[in-house]
Amino acid sequence: MASNSFGNIFRITTWGESHGKAIGVVIDGCPAGLEINEDEINAELTLRAPGRNIYTSPRVELDRAEILSGVFEGKTTGAPISIIIPNKDPDSSKYEPIQHLLRPGHANYTYLEKYGVFDYRGGGRASARETACRVAAGTIAKKILANEGVQLTAYIKQIGSVEAIISRGDIQQLRSLTYQNHLYCPDAAASTKMALLIEKTKQEGDSLGGVIEFLVHALPAGFGDPIYEKIEAKLAHAMLSIPATKGFEIGMGFDSSLMSGSEHNDLFIKESGITKTRTNHAGGTLGGISTGMPIIGRVAFKPTSSIMKSQMTLTTVGESAALELPVGSRHDPCVAVRAVPIVEAMAALVLVDVLLLNRCVRL
Amino acid sequence: MASNSFGNIFRITTWGESHGKAIGVVIDGCPAGLEINEDEINAELTLRAPGRNIYTSPRVELDRAEILSGVFEGKTTGAPISIIIPNKDPDSSKYEPIQHLLRPGHANYTYLEKYGVFDYRGGGRASARETACRVAAGTIAKKILANEGVQLTAYIKQIGSVEAIISRGDIQQLRSLTYQNHLYCPDAAASTKMALLIEKTKQEGDSLGGVIEFLVHALPAGFGDPIYEKIEAKLAHAMLSIPATKGFEIGMGFDSSLMSGSEHNDLFIKESGITKTRTNHAGGTLGGISTGMPIIGRVAFKPTSSIMKSQMTLTTVGESAALELPVGSRHDPCVAVRAVPIVEAMAALVLVDVLLLNRCVRL
Amino acid sequence: MASNSFGNIFRITTWGESHGKAIGVVIDGCPAGLEINEDEINAELTLRAPGRNIYTSPRVELDRAEILSGVFEGKTTGAPISIIIPNKDPDSSKYEPIQHLLRPGHANYTYLEKYGVFDYRGGGRASARETACRVAAGTIAKKILANEGVQLTAYIKQIGSVEAIISRGDIQQLRSLTYQNHLYCPDAAASTKMALLIEKTKQEGDSLGGVIEFLVHALPAGFGDPIYEKIEAKLAHAMLSIPATKGFEIGMGFDSSLMSGSEHNDLFIKESGITKTRTNHAGGTLGGISTGMPIIGRVAFKPTSSIMKSQMTLTTVGESAALELPVGSRHDPCVAVRAVPIVEAMAALVLVDVLLLNRCVRL
Amino acid sequence: MASNSFGNIFRITTWGESHGKAIGVVIDGCPAGLEINEDEINAELTLRAPGRNIYTSPRVELDRAEILSGVFEGKTTGAPISIIIPNKDPDSSKYEPIQHLLRPGHANYTYLEKYGVFDYRGGGRASARETACRVAAGTIAKKILANEGVQLTAYIKQIGSVEAIISRGDIQQLRSLTYQNHLYCPDAAASTKMALLIEKTKQEGDSLGGVIEFLVHALPAGFGDPIYEKIEAKLAHAMLSIPATKGFEIGMGFDSSLMSGSEHNDLFIKESGITKTRTNHAGGTLGGISTGMPIIGRVAFKPTSSIMKSQMTLTTVGESAALELPVGSRHDPCVAVRAVPIVEAMAALVLVDVLLLNRCVRL
Repeated sequence: MASNSFGNIFRITTWGESHGKAIGVVIDGCPAGLEINEDEINAELTLRAPGRNIYTSPRVELDRAEILSGVFEGKTTGAPISIIIPNKDPDSSKYEPIQHLLRPGHANYTYLEKYGVFDYRGGGRASARETACRVAAGTIAKKILANEGVQLTAYIKQIGSVEAIISRGDIQQLRSLTYQNHLYCPDAAASTKMALLIEKTKQEGDSLGGVIEFLVHALPAGFGDPIYEKIEAKLAHAMLSIPATKGFEIGMGFDSSLMSGSEHNDLFIKESGITKTRTNHAGGTLGGISTGMPIIGRVAFKPTSSIMKSQMTLTTVGESAALELPVGSRHDPCVAVRAVPIVEAMAALVLVDVLLLNRCVRL
Repeated sequence: MASNSFGNIFRITTWGESHGKAIGVVIDGCPAGLEINEDEINAELTLRAPGRNIYTSPRVELDRAEILSGVFEGKTTGAPISIIIPNKDPDSSKYEPIQHLLRPGHANYTYLEKYGVFDYRGGGRASARETACRVAAGTIAKKILANEGVQLTAYIKQIGSVEAIISRGDIQQLRSLTYQNHLYCPDAAASTKMALLIEKTKQEGDSLGGVIEFLVHALPAGFGDPIYEKIEAKLAHAMLSIPATKGFEIGMGFDSSLMSGSEHNDLFIKESGITKTRTNHAGGTLGGISTGMPIIGRVAFKPTSSIMKSQMTLTTVGESAALELPVGSRHDPCVAVRAVPIVEAMAALVLVDVLLLNRCVRL
Repeated sequence: MASNSFGNIFRITTWGESHGKAIGVVIDGCPAGLEINEDEINAELTLRAPGRNIYTSPRVELDRAEILSGVFEGKTTGAPISIIIPNKDPDSSKYEPIQHLLRPGHANYTYLEKYGVFDYRGGGRASARETACRVAAGTIAKKILANEGVQLTAYIKQIGSVEAIISRGDIQQLRSLTYQNHLYCPDAAASTKMALLIEKTKQEGDSLGGVIEFLVHALPAGFGDPIYEKIEAKLAHAMLSIPATKGFEIGMGFDSSLMSGSEHNDLFIKESGITKTRTNHAGGTLGGISTGMPIIGRVAFKPTSSIMKSQMTLTTVGESAALELPVGSRHDPCVAVRAVPIVEAMAALVLVDVLLLNRCVRL
Repeated sequence: MASNSFGNIFRITTWGESHGKAIGVVIDGCPAGLEINEDEINAELTLRAPGRNIYTSPRVELDRAEILSGVFEGKTTGAPISIIIPNKDPDSSKYEPIQHLLRPGHANYTYLEKYGVFDYRGGGRASARETACRVAAGTIAKKILANEGVQLTAYIKQIGSVEAIISRGDIQQLRSLTYQNHLYCPDAAASTKMALLIEKTKQEGDSLGGVIEFLVHALPAGFGDPIYEKIEAKLAHAMLSIPATKGFEIGMGFDSSLMSGSEHNDLFIKESGITKTRTNHAGGTLGGISTGMPIIGRVAFKPTSSIMKSQMTLTTVGESAALELPVGSRHDPCVAVRAVPIVEAMAALVLVDVLLLNRCVRL
């Protein structure tokens, strides 16, 4: 139901196919009075854009969002904000030779089974191009959060088996280091190793997976809802809606299953008059509600499905066939890299909704 | 918004506190014509019930659900099904001495920050007792799924560092082995080691975490929605709404980040005229839509927060204090064990909704 | 979807059949900190109760609501509030002889067509008994509204062709006059005529329709949402969800179609420094958003479908048959009378949601 | 919440201001496989378009909808359908002199109170221009309905005090007569009188209200939901969301309050083996669910708020002032005329959702 929408109070609806005329997003429920302009959105879109560096897909489309509604004299009016991003010059001809092949790791088979039809051009609606709309909407969500002092960022924690060491103390610096790095990894040493690994894998016509971590600072205690709308449940939902994701964890995540209760429990302490916990194994929530400690989570990405190696598959009518992507196909050897701003955007979309909903909790 | 409800077409709303008069669930949108009775629900509740074995909490309350509406002459009528489970003999006096202490790993602090009030008796609304309602509703969801041939189960995959080896071929046998085992682990050898570990940990007054795996068979290809309502996103949401969960993964999950694309991609093959994939690293979905292969996921549980060891904490007014649970307190040394039927129920609630929604997809 | 729920932030879900064990309502999203007790709810239920006076159905069941959750030490906690109202001593035997007849003006035919089954006992889920749950929930909604200074009431405006003359200036007095009158009509002279008409109609074995008006005072300007969630659209939805309703209007309603623009337009004026309108033909909203003037609307009720006169109909298998209700059947000659507290409750449910949602509108 | 969206399974979200760059609608949940093209949508838009005849506003903008997504090779794909309608050459300068005046009967005051800001150009988001999006979406809804044999239409029933006599037997002929008539009134004699009345009123610089009736044929019995999602409740919601509406009724509506039960009750009969009712006072539903008889309802429209007569009002800072619309202002003397296709569209949007939801009712 309404599978192209996300959020409750601050609710986005995205539309558009990879090789259609345009993609776009409508934001309903954005509070009135927020200053916003297209440049701010385009700056964020550039972070996600393909062709940004040699390790991501060389598609050189430069996304330019246009705000069509909901902003008047530079500020939001409370009316829905419609943002459109034209698709520039999509060349669908490359996909024609493979349009009748089931692509391993792609959704063309499942779309065909579900809908009986699939817009194969550039992956159609199943393309990760849809995520540009999330980044556009996330830009606005982050401005609202920033207005209430909440800050967030995301970064590459791991590519293949190379793991980054992260210093989470200063979130602004961390974000700055991240987006200065061509792999969105704030650990320069790890980034160098990752780059080598990506290069090698690319030359083999293969691809890599990765892990993105996100971090939220300064969300006060008492935000979020219990039971079915726990912050971690909404974050998990948000993250697993990103293409190529296979896992989500908060705080110590899967590693918490290896800890004892006396190790894992975060003890409450008073620091400068503020209630905190000595450790933050929980990752910033208890019972689905924020503790006031940083919210920390991680998202697992599978290796890019589109690889240059030949793969045996079936045609749409069930015959055996070999899939070989056309020479010069543009695919990221590691989709996780470009997904960093998307993870950040989805975290922002969850939190802005949490922030607004919390205004209705007390008499 | 509506944080006590879950699902779209088949939608549950739960209510009740641990030590209130009763807990309950209202199911809206259950199709008419399904045979259902209280015994079926109570049989499932018994699986989750505390006091079932020595490794779970010795609380001896025997849950008896009563169907108050929506069933006529043994069948559902399409009207909302209200199920009530009385709370028998809750003794809240034990909690009084600790009611003014912030409990590490518990939600009393966050509830207080959010609502300004907390029903401390037995954990109030934050208690895992709420999950009995999920199991009750899940019983009905599973009957609808079974009616369309979809089968599912869950089981202990890991407790502490002890991992079970699972044979996933015959799901009925797997489920049967699981619920015959006192730790809900189908691998008897692993179960023996787990039992020893639990016993040892319990004697130390400490607790353990664990991992539960769930498995769905025979959901045909083409079910589920793309973009924001991907099956994996809904499952992640569902699982992270269970108390004490810290992570979710589908298919190869976090391990997929360590694989190459050529390893991870599941190749399409034809088997007895049916389209399948040779491997199932994806875990049964592509682009959020079912492939027809088994859906496999895992959920990480942190160690039980309630431990018998003394812990330093704060009072609700911010003074340092030691928390010592009263002698004879009843807490599971590993909450994951009792959570097995809950994970199964949540998977069923997701899938029944997916099943019904899919009826609206084609002209 | 979720057809047994109403509201967004303050959301109710009702359940139960007329002759089942009980009926009930779960309220999700009630702000924490509201004082509430069962006596307050029962006082409102008594207003709606059958058997209250000779003009309404003589069924003598005395509804006693019980709060099962969500209230701790006399105040709401933010957790869902479950209210149950037992069905006392329902005697379904009277309905057995007519269970296979399609009842003119009733829903048993449409339920059968929709669901394939109908719980005929006392009208099952289609009975107006469900509205007791609305009144219970409305009691809480009204307390929240009162806490912000918003007051509301409803009253009989018309029965058959007898119309009441209403003085709308003092809403507290209006409400008081209403509920002191056995027909819930604040105009005593009209009430006398209505009583005679009802008595005469009853003796003929027939029934009457009527019109209820509702009035809201002190909702400030700027509440409510534009476009699809206009206050009047939500009120219309709410009112047409009450059994036996056939129409809704706000302000001058259908009569506005007979006015000219220069007559109908409410001119803005300043009074004691407050922006008002000289007239209030609009009925308190413009573009779906409150103007600060009283909200006034009316709801049309058809005559009671259950009449003592013999009616030709069909059996459920399509044969001609005469329907004669059993002697001593208890039916209101005019359902509108008992519906007064229900209209009030539905208005309250709409407005409390409007009130809470408006907290999210500005940065 | 999400006040710019309407519907559940088939869900529309509209955006755009009267004098912004464009307006548009995103349709989520449209079944795959429906043939649709822009010409079909534009044909419907023309019916609603201003400037179509001398009795509606002379604004000559010709709306041309463009489908941006969700359609592939002429058919819907199940992906969201984004439709954009550019605003051609809006001249906002006329509104500048009156931008600081509260306009009687308009929403600029209430928007300002709610949001603190109002895009005054052409009425901004509060303009009836938004309804073009409803007509565009309604075109698609009607095609789905037609595919299942459901037909619907709307027409002018009354303008001022002139009432049309309607023959409802042949819905196709009725629709054809309606849209051939310049006032969308199928009764030619009444239409002549209405035209004279409109002309006279226009010359006085004043405006008129009216009533639109809608009619649905061939929706089988058993569709729609009981309790809070009754067909009539959803229709009432839909209709009262149209600008300038003040009332809704179904079947005999407000007149049913003047009837006795024995008159009003529709008796069940068998006709050619089909269960029908002898009369259709109910207007096609019982208990919120369709009876299989035609659905008939009416919507009351107030007289156009924008009149050429001078009106006393306030400035936005509260000073007395006279509002005089600029000479040459383009406003319909009777908004009801242009609203005929909008009422039809809203009825279609309600019914397509009802149709799809009903697929989930039975096991």
